[in-house]
Amino acid sequence: MSTMLQGIAASSGIAIAKAYRLIEPDLTVIKKTIEAPEDEVERFQEAVTTSKSELQSIRDRAEKELGADKAAIFDAHLLVLSDPELLGPIEDKIKSENVNAEFALKETADVFVAMFEQMDNEYMKERAADIRDVTKRVLAHLLNVRIPNPSMIAEEVIIIAEDLTPSDTAQLNRNYVKGFTTDIGGRTSHSAIMARSMEIPAVVGTKEATETIRNGDIVIVDGLTGQVHINPTPELVEEYEQRQGAFEAQKAEWAKLVNEKTVSADGHHVELAANIGTPKDLKGVIRNGGEGVGLYRTEFLYMGRDQLPTEDEQFEAYKAVLEGMEGKPVVVRTLDIGGDKELPYLSLPKEMNPFLGYRAIRLCLEEQDIFRTQLRALLRASQYGNLKIMFPMIATLGEFRQAKAILLEEKQKLIDAGNKIAEQIEVGIMVEIPSTAVMADTFAKEVDFFSIGTNDLIQYTMAADRMNERISYLYQPYNPAILRLVKMVIDAAHKEGKWAGMCGEMAGDEIAIPVLLGLGLDEFSMSATSILKARSLIRKLSQEDMKSLAESVLTLETNQDVMNAVKRATENI
Amino acid sequence: MSTMLQGIAASSGIAIAKAYRLIEPDLTVIKKTIEAPEDEVERFQEAVTTSKSELQSIRDRAEKELGADKAAIFDAHLLVLSDPELLGPIEDKIKSENVNAEFALKETADVFVAMFEQMDNEYMKERAADIRDVTKRVLAHLLNVRIPNPSMIAEEVIIIAEDLTPSDTAQLNRNYVKGFTTDIGGRTSHSAIMARSMEIPAVVGTKEATETIRNGDIVIVDGLTGQVHINPTPELVEEYEQRQGAFEAQKAEWAKLVNEKTVSADGHHVELAANIGTPKDLKGVIRNGGEGVGLYRTEFLYMGRDQLPTEDEQFEAYKAVLEGMEGKPVVVRTLDIGGDKELPYLSLPKEMNPFLGYRAIRLCLEEQDIFRTQLRALLRASQYGNLKIMFPMIATLGEFRQAKAILLEEKQKLIDAGNKIAEQIEVGIMVEIPSTAVMADTFAKEVDFFSIGTNDLIQYTMAADRMNERISYLYQPYNPAILRLVKMVIDAAHKEGKWAGMCGEMAGDEIAIPVLLGLGLDEFSMSATSILKARSLIRKLSQEDMKSLAESVLTLETNQDVMNAVKRATENI
Repeated sequence: MSTMLQGIAASSGIAIAKAYRLIEPDLTVIKKTIEAPEDEVERFQEAVTTSKSELQSIRDRAEKELGADKAAIFDAHLLVLSDPELLGPIEDKIKSENVNAEFALKETADVFVAMFEQMDNEYMKERAADIRDVTKRVLAHLLNVRIPNPSMIAEEVIIIAEDLTPSDTAQLNRNYVKGFTTDIGGRTSHSAIMARSMEIPAVVGTKEATETIRNGDIVIVDGLTGQVHINPTPELVEEYEQRQGAFEAQKAEWAKLVNEKTVSADGHHVELAANIGTPKDLKGVIRNGGEGVGLYRTEFLYMGRDQLPTEDEQFEAYKAVLEGMEGKPVVVRTLDIGGDKELPYLSLPKEMNPFLGYRAIRLCLEEQDIFRTQLRALLRASQYGNLKIMFPMIATLGEFRQAKAILLEEKQKLIDAGNKIAEQIEVGIMVEIPSTAVMADTFAKEVDFFSIGTNDLIQYTMAADRMNERISYLYQPYNPAILRLVKMVIDAAHKEGKWAGMCGEMAGDEIAIPVLLGLGLDEFSMSATSILKARSLIRKLSQEDMKSLAESVLTLETNQDVMNAVKRATENI
Repeated sequence: MSTMLQGIAASSGIAIAKAYRLIEPDLTVIKKTIEAPEDEVERFQEAVTTSKSELQSIRDRAEKELGADKAAIFDAHLLVLSDPELLGPIEDKIKSENVNAEFALKETADVFVAMFEQMDNEYMKERAADIRDVTKRVLAHLLNVRIPNPSMIAEEVIIIAEDLTPSDTAQLNRNYVKGFTTDIGGRTSHSAIMARSMEIPAVVGTKEATETIRNGDIVIVDGLTGQVHINPTPELVEEYEQRQGAFEAQKAEWAKLVNEKTVSADGHHVELAANIGTPKDLKGVIRNGGEGVGLYRTEFLYMGRDQLPTEDEQFEAYKAVLEGMEGKPVVVRTLDIGGDKELPYLSLPKEMNPFLGYRAIRLCLEEQDIFRTQLRALLRASQYGNLKIMFPMIATLGEFRQAKAILLEEKQKLIDAGNKIAEQIEVGIMVEIPSTAVMADTFAKEVDFFSIGTNDLIQYTMAADRMNERISYLYQPYNPAILRLVKMVIDAAHKEGKWAGMCGEMAGDEIAIPVLLGLGLDEFSMSATSILKARSLIRKLSQEDMKSLAESVLTLETNQDVMNAVKRATENI
């Protein structure tokens, strides 16, 4: 019997494979009195030995497929499992207190973890994390439950998870992971963005994938419609194999546009750029015909490490991206940390509403050392390409003026010290806060460009957390309120002879593109994998017609009204 | 030596009195071995006896000053202190384990608290809270530290606290509490709103009041400038006594306007209404010459209890307010719960960004039983006065249509059942979400009125949590972005022949009032205590002049620019 779940189409394409559940097992420990403590110690030692050999093989595979640096973590885990200072007390506890191995392990490890965590030393804190991880593995063996090891996957699978963290996805082997589906998340959640950048089909927000799907079930993930089929009939599999073929054929068709300009049917040119997170993403940008980088999210340079990146480390990354794009525009967004993106080593305060909190430019204007280091790295890299600098989360003109003054100060200092800096560096802002959209006319006199960040702009304009499932109905990109704000920004830019781009998910959306083209948006920045499809669409649209369409949808009342109007206007295209 | 702290002026007026620190003492317990357990048991019994007589006198005073219902809690506490099932095990523990009384008390009480809390029974859960409170009191005696008892204050004091919760303020005796100052909070925090409704001077957000001020220090709280002086010189005290006198004289002058209409110097009439939380607040509205209630926050009916209020309980409250206002307009806001206002008995999900979450109308449209009960109570009460119903947190036209349809359904059912309902009940919305301000033209065709909720509108438009101290600089009521949105709302209302009011703190603000008058705002709803001052100000302003002022400030760039322009334009008034 085939079952179907409806989720949110997060990354296009169709995948058919066996299910692999990436789910934390229940490791609850119950204290028990043991009759034969010697046997219990032996059971514990066996679990340690099994864990060691398992870790060894994970380590070897990680080294082969991901590189020595990713494998190092497992060396640390192996060391923990050979440490008599940890193992000794556990065995003593089993024998002296006649308790079960699970309990002795858990109690002892907790003490060590707490001790290391209290130390004011990053190295020791990492030891705490290592002990916690290793304890989980040994516990799992003692309790006879299975810990999923995504890096050990050796056949084609579809990952089933509640959610995927960036570190989960980093461990996935692209050769074997054909798609994934999650219980939670929306089109703009990390897992969805990651899926698009990995170019694997994904459906998120199914609510019950982990509840419904067993290991080994055959699963179809339809990243085009958001459907997930479990144990489909042979007929359904055949149907989907056909659709998969058609999708691949369409992709091949789109691929022919890789070196074409993006020009509407009536000759209006726009630029299609890509959003990237690291220099490694450039390959995908080139392969998909990106005409530039519209958003380089620099926060990844700061994440997954235990201290700030140095100026030189940053310089190398920026230089690599600028050189890689060979003179095409690269818009670098300065650090956007805080909100849902934490940096443990900065020990930011816990906030009640992080999305409305101390983040991005607010933090950079306060912690100026961090900001100035980044700006110096950017300025020094500027000679290697076409750099544009963009400040995130600007809410007031005062903030922009302060940020720009700091940039000019650092520039002057570098020039005075004999550094070579590009002559022309455009300085712009993200428009993602309603106040800035409403005041775009005053900003346009002072900035060189705008890039509309729709993910945040929508959540603030609708006052609805885009990660909160209960109010996901309020994430309305086509709500005329959003479109009117977008129009204010574009019109304000053009009035002052500046350009306006967009770097939220909306820029690559089929329903939004016709309206944005009609509103006169100059640059569309999106997941690299959406570029060719968008180019194909724009080449079929007349900008004049889209102007009329845009004017008419601005007078409509609801998100749904706009969707219907755009679909009607473009159905024959 | 006199010290000065600068905070945020939260409630106007000047108070001079002794400091009373309302701060939780440190009740950390250390385990000790005791030589003479019999003496220790005696020490414990003495602490219990002292606590009992203390509770008895608090109970008596509470009964006299706050009524028997408020006193009942202390009866429950007294019962706990006579319960041999709690006291016996503590004494046994001291004797059998040779431990100190503090430790025996804490360990034993914790077991009882945990046991009662686990029970699925509200009555038992309350017992847990009682035991916890009583344990704190006995512990304080054992540890020889003092627990503040705000209800025991019997001399004139100024309360010094980190923050004041609604329950703290409920316990304060208005006869003795002359003012307060807190470390945290802003003009729109609960403590600030409470201070204005109690009409006592307050300065919040001083950051270090609790750190700097000792019990018994003489403190001046200047709720006009936000200054707090600690141990002032006699000269300074004299100066402030003069200012206090001048302020009282001005208040007396304002009081003459209590029965006057609110008319500008050139004859334009506006309505000054009050924000209230409970029927008890009506006295203040009448005393301060309120021309109506512009915002009745019904959530207080739902708070501080362990289940939802019944339809009849609500009916009585609404009827009392409508009758009390004797036919003057009363705008009742339907339940705005969630966000920072939790109802434990609804067990709402924890959210990452509650201000952008599942709250107010979003919750009511989902939990329709709660919503329909409130609407029925309102409709039944409508015949007793001039009721207007207002929905909070409306972000889309779809939400308004759904809420209104539910209202009409309940109305029809009540009419069919033979209930008498007022003929005319206006149905409007709060405008506190940017999308709704931007789309005001489409809303104006369907709603009867708008009331602009500036506290939230500002926080969403600037994407800045108004409770977050680190970004308090972004709470900018005069930012032209806010003023432009306000203008959109007022213009949209007038174009359709509807009225527009404002019920955020901004409506009573001296800098905002001239601009709002110029923009054509019809109704200003504020803390009752601000009404006479606002009336006095408006009577001196020419609406024609304010129109020009409003037009010109809309083209300015920053919050500060607007402040300066308004001050310049009104300095000779």
